[in-house]
Amino acid sequence: MTMGSGKETLTGMISFESDYIAGAHPALMKRLIETNSEPLSGYGTDRYSGDARQKIRDAVGMPDAVVEFIAGGTQTNAVVISSLLRDWEGVIAAETGHIAVHEAGAIEYSGHKVLTLPQKEGKIDPETLKRFLSAFFEDGNREHTVYPGMVYISFPTEYGTLYPKKELTALSEICRAYGLILYLDGARLGFGLASPEADMTLADIMRLCDVFSIGGTKIGALCGEAVVFKKDRAPRHFMNSMKKRGALLAKGRLTGVQFDALFTDGLYFEISRQVIGRAMKLKELFRKRNVPLLIDSPTNQQFVILEDAVLARLKERVSFCFWEKYDESHTVVRFAVGWSTTDEDLRALEDALDAITD
Amino acid sequence: MTMGSGKETLTGMISFESDYIAGAHPALMKRLIETNSEPLSGYGTDRYSGDARQKIRDAVGMPDAVVEFIAGGTQTNAVVISSLLRDWEGVIAAETGHIAVHEAGAIEYSGHKVLTLPQKEGKIDPETLKRFLSAFFEDGNREHTVYPGMVYISFPTEYGTLYPKKELTALSEICRAYGLILYLDGARLGFGLASPEADMTLADIMRLCDVFSIGGTKIGALCGEAVVFKKDRAPRHFMNSMKKRGALLAKGRLTGVQFDALFTDGLYFEISRQVIGRAMKLKELFRKRNVPLLIDSPTNQQFVILEDAVLARLKERVSFCFWEKYDESHTVVRFAVGWSTTDEDLRALEDALDAITD
Amino acid sequence: MTMGSGKETLTGMISFESDYIAGAHPALMKRLIETNSEPLSGYGTDRYSGDARQKIRDAVGMPDAVVEFIAGGTQTNAVVISSLLRDWEGVIAAETGHIAVHEAGAIEYSGHKVLTLPQKEGKIDPETLKRFLSAFFEDGNREHTVYPGMVYISFPTEYGTLYPKKELTALSEICRAYGLILYLDGARLGFGLASPEADMTLADIMRLCDVFSIGGTKIGALCGEAVVFKKDRAPRHFMNSMKKRGALLAKGRLTGVQFDALFTDGLYFEISRQVIGRAMKLKELFRKRNVPLLIDSPTNQQFVILEDAVLARLKERVSFCFWEKYDESHTVVRFAVGWSTTDEDLRALEDALDAITD
Amino acid sequence: MTMGSGKETLTGMISFESDYIAGAHPALMKRLIETNSEPLSGYGTDRYSGDARQKIRDAVGMPDAVVEFIAGGTQTNAVVISSLLRDWEGVIAAETGHIAVHEAGAIEYSGHKVLTLPQKEGKIDPETLKRFLSAFFEDGNREHTVYPGMVYISFPTEYGTLYPKKELTALSEICRAYGLILYLDGARLGFGLASPEADMTLADIMRLCDVFSIGGTKIGALCGEAVVFKKDRAPRHFMNSMKKRGALLAKGRLTGVQFDALFTDGLYFEISRQVIGRAMKLKELFRKRNVPLLIDSPTNQQFVILEDAVLARLKERVSFCFWEKYDESHTVVRFAVGWSTTDEDLRALEDALDAITD
Repeated sequence: MTMGSGKETLTGMISFESDYIAGAHPALMKRLIETNSEPLSGYGTDRYSGDARQKIRDAVGMPDAVVEFIAGGTQTNAVVISSLLRDWEGVIAAETGHIAVHEAGAIEYSGHKVLTLPQKEGKIDPETLKRFLSAFFEDGNREHTVYPGMVYISFPTEYGTLYPKKELTALSEICRAYGLILYLDGARLGFGLASPEADMTLADIMRLCDVFSIGGTKIGALCGEAVVFKKDRAPRHFMNSMKKRGALLAKGRLTGVQFDALFTDGLYFEISRQVIGRAMKLKELFRKRNVPLLIDSPTNQQFVILEDAVLARLKERVSFCFWEKYDESHTVVRFAVGWSTTDEDLRALEDALDAITD
Repeated sequence: MTMGSGKETLTGMISFESDYIAGAHPALMKRLIETNSEPLSGYGTDRYSGDARQKIRDAVGMPDAVVEFIAGGTQTNAVVISSLLRDWEGVIAAETGHIAVHEAGAIEYSGHKVLTLPQKEGKIDPETLKRFLSAFFEDGNREHTVYPGMVYISFPTEYGTLYPKKELTALSEICRAYGLILYLDGARLGFGLASPEADMTLADIMRLCDVFSIGGTKIGALCGEAVVFKKDRAPRHFMNSMKKRGALLAKGRLTGVQFDALFTDGLYFEISRQVIGRAMKLKELFRKRNVPLLIDSPTNQQFVILEDAVLARLKERVSFCFWEKYDESHTVVRFAVGWSTTDEDLRALEDALDAITD
Repeated sequence: MTMGSGKETLTGMISFESDYIAGAHPALMKRLIETNSEPLSGYGTDRYSGDARQKIRDAVGMPDAVVEFIAGGTQTNAVVISSLLRDWEGVIAAETGHIAVHEAGAIEYSGHKVLTLPQKEGKIDPETLKRFLSAFFEDGNREHTVYPGMVYISFPTEYGTLYPKKELTALSEICRAYGLILYLDGARLGFGLASPEADMTLADIMRLCDVFSIGGTKIGALCGEAVVFKKDRAPRHFMNSMKKRGALLAKGRLTGVQFDALFTDGLYFEISRQVIGRAMKLKELFRKRNVPLLIDSPTNQQFVILEDAVLARLKERVSFCFWEKYDESHTVVRFAVGWSTTDEDLRALEDALDAITD
Repeated sequence: MTMGSGKETLTGMISFESDYIAGAHPALMKRLIETNSEPLSGYGTDRYSGDARQKIRDAVGMPDAVVEFIAGGTQTNAVVISSLLRDWEGVIAAETGHIAVHEAGAIEYSGHKVLTLPQKEGKIDPETLKRFLSAFFEDGNREHTVYPGMVYISFPTEYGTLYPKKELTALSEICRAYGLILYLDGARLGFGLASPEADMTLADIMRLCDVFSIGGTKIGALCGEAVVFKKDRAPRHFMNSMKKRGALLAKGRLTGVQFDALFTDGLYFEISRQVIGRAMKLKELFRKRNVPLLIDSPTNQQFVILEDAVLARLKERVSFCFWEKYDESHTVVRFAVGWSTTDEDLRALEDALDAITD
């Protein structure tokens, strides 16, 4: 499996390569332009960051939640996890979790172990977690092992799948019973919430998790993730911990203005719904042509099993992302829909497929 | 001494509080808008990052220099220093150096010590460095101490001062003689090069240092610093080291497009010259009124000694930055000129000063 | 699975609880006493440490090998691995490897990831390693993942098993082909070499590995492990790296004198042979009684599957170590033979077993 | 200034080179021999470690103090400091403090900064500390700097000097007022308490500090330092933090038995008194001959200013430690008295001096 973008610059062809191939959503760009010449204080103390925090607190339905902004996703995971874990603790993740595989060791760089559990379609099964924790804490002799201090999940997962409310509730209850922090990586949170399969609101996420992120980069921002802590879970002197890890932007307005825009008049959800709408069309488009899917993904990433001959011809007209070999003559590829994907892009993909399969 | 921006949002008043109070220079914003909807690959592999690298290599006059982009200044220092130091080494800095004081321990977070030397107006004296290194390496018994592996300087320094070519040459020769890396933090590099006192070009910096940064954030960018390595000093697998430290932006276009613009048609130097021109006017404006300066700074930060009564009245009309107490009745404050500072701002400051001293 | 010793002090009963329940082998204690009042220089620069290094170089048959002494096993692994890995690298281990499970995150504390592979009886299969590396290095897009820089194996493994020469040769060749360091944790190295199943000498280990440890703690020392590097793999300024990690003993004589004794007249091998001899008797003793073994371990740790009722009665007379539940009514327990185990101890165990099974 | 022992093995000559040139005090060696063959549980859970903890709790007069044993001094400092500091904090030390200069960056390796204060004869002046803390905490804008979380002092200091009770009380009060931990490095604690100038008991140290170490290595042990925490300052899961840092000895009996012996019948204090008695004789011996002292050290390290010609001749007969150049023709050297120093050694030194100065 590889990351969403290759070494070369994408050419002008229709691209489903990742959900961060375009710049900022026009509404965000507009606000960046409008506020550009205002003198604002630095390091996230500006009015737009303040407004964005308040709008996010309103959206999550928890007036005393603590909200901060960080430029990138790996940085967000590393800063949050390492600021919250205690010396003797590690973080539990699915063996396919982003922090376990695709962050170049950023969690270990902070001195903490990622404790991996088996996964199913990218998810941790509550029963698996429970068995692991109960085995760990019932064994009285743990001086030589890393304590689990946090559970990391992503929503949607690496495979685009979702935890239903029932499962997230179960994970939340297990974490509380054992005193662990539940952290949800929401790099694509909007796409998860806007999915036809989702049975949760942002307020449910807030209530069930101790801390979670709201990804901006993949949902219309140039950069930026919001981190939302329950008040009693917010690290003390978090700005210092951010600064110490190089995560405090001088012009905090950059993330502040964008999140202010995203959380004004429900734009974050509107973008997400449009993307999911097109992603479902994209899935349908493969289904109609009997092209098999690796997973029935309910979100914006679709994992398609292509015959290698078809793949070779298709990639002359459309760009997408190699995921993994499926068998001798088939390959799994990922099509990602982003805010900049248009209905025209979908039609062009349709034409390309039809041209090949004719 | 405090950082350039306080907790509160700046109000509409004329602000000399820092050189990062405004967003992006209009020329950069224009390019961000123009390129916004192009599909581009991620992580700095896009065409604009490529072009920006080439333009910087041209500007520094070293065709095989290695150029990368990082979002912020502290992150740049931490990533560069910790990627280049070897296990047993630390980095030498002036005791007032940014990495020694104002980065919340970001270098130590990477497991390396900052070895501080006495400073003069923010600078390390070559003789002081030589004595330190000669004492260190001539003593044969160094198993218990941190080896100096790098010298960190900034240009301009924290006090706005500059190393003349003669001093930088001396530092460079000492570093080579002892096998140390010379790293120049150029968060305000343009302001240094554009100063009337500067006797160096970008190519001189490149030639005399092993690695240096070209600050974007303070010279017109929303965020971003370029790091320039001599080829044989560039760390292997630097993208992995960046990723591991959370410093690899998904939408690398954000820094790529901006640096491409900054290094097109000499914009970086043009912005810098305008800023320095206004900074010299600002200095003159205090001098004419016999307001004493802490240091005769040749760059965009001016350190002014104000009577506390004057300070109290002035800050009702103009915002600036508290630096340190000077004596019982005087305070050092910093006025910073940025790309968004106008001649009108200077006139307004003049008026405010005259109104007070009348 | 738990570590070899519980919270409580062992009482006077016959103990097979671990191989570090006794102090120093009498020959080592004798030398500690004889040299005790000699004035010696510190930090491993004393004559006994020097002699021990030379004797080990002779024993491994590599005159320019670099030898250092470190107090404990976890410390040895952490110091060696973190001194040799480069910034972007992690260390491969079996998922049951000591560094992966039982060192409380000591490798991650150094900022590096442990990359785990599936295991069989505690070992990494060369084919599994080859597939992993070939998949990793043939994929051209690895900016987001940790590079494998080293393979960690133990000999004997956590399950007492051994790599035959053929397998170690295969691992060694794979490591060379891919440029990885092969590190063998020899906390119980002597027991491995003295096993009837072993088909290797110390010189083979030296030749096939880049670095390995020779455990003292479990083979007669109060504390201490020797680390042996091939010359071109020895880290520069290793004493500084040791000191930085708190691993440089002031009275280096403590490890020096003991290793000097262990490598005088083949004592290390003599102790090991005696222990293995008794361990084989112990295994036989269970076999004769048709008590099943989890693994046919060829070294000093024997993993026995006991009926829970038998276990309950046996532990009234003999102490051993809980390993893991086997099924509803059976438990795996570990019997460890050490240098202080006597034939009398074995007879007493035999009596205890007979008393129960009667 | 260099560490106490050079690269070469000390020859048979009379040595004042350091206070760790000899092995174990005979009383400790005796107990190691007597207990050697007892089967004992590992990792500090053995009965002797337990007894030693109780005897130390009695000696410090605090029944609920938490006591642990660690093999070496640098390791002790690193483990204690990094286990107690919070993410955003650093540790204050005198600029000559052992952790600031002679531990190869062990504190920074743990990710924390050593904040240095000016010193006088190795000590931090309470007024200096107060000014530093008051300046820090009264400035409201500290997102960019490392918070002071602990004060590190040593007793005796690097220069053999002592804090009188009044000064330690002042430091203690300042730490409490600002919420900082006061940690006293007692690598030579016994020598400090046994000094004619000392006006404190072990119970005073316990009462005034939050955590301190009781050095064994320099006061008769082969290795080992005891760490004593006030109960509410003891880190949770400290064994895991020790293990994670490679500081948990498998055969904890090694430190347990030795500390048990040191704290039986006041041996620790008896050894210390004998050493100090001889150190005062050594000082007197120089004074009588009008050889100047750098500092009037009240403990076991004496810093003597020798003419270089005298030094050259003296070192043919006696070994001692180079400290620093004093001027063109004089050098400061250190004479250290240890438990193995005899009255005969002193007489031999006297003879050597007389032979030279004749």
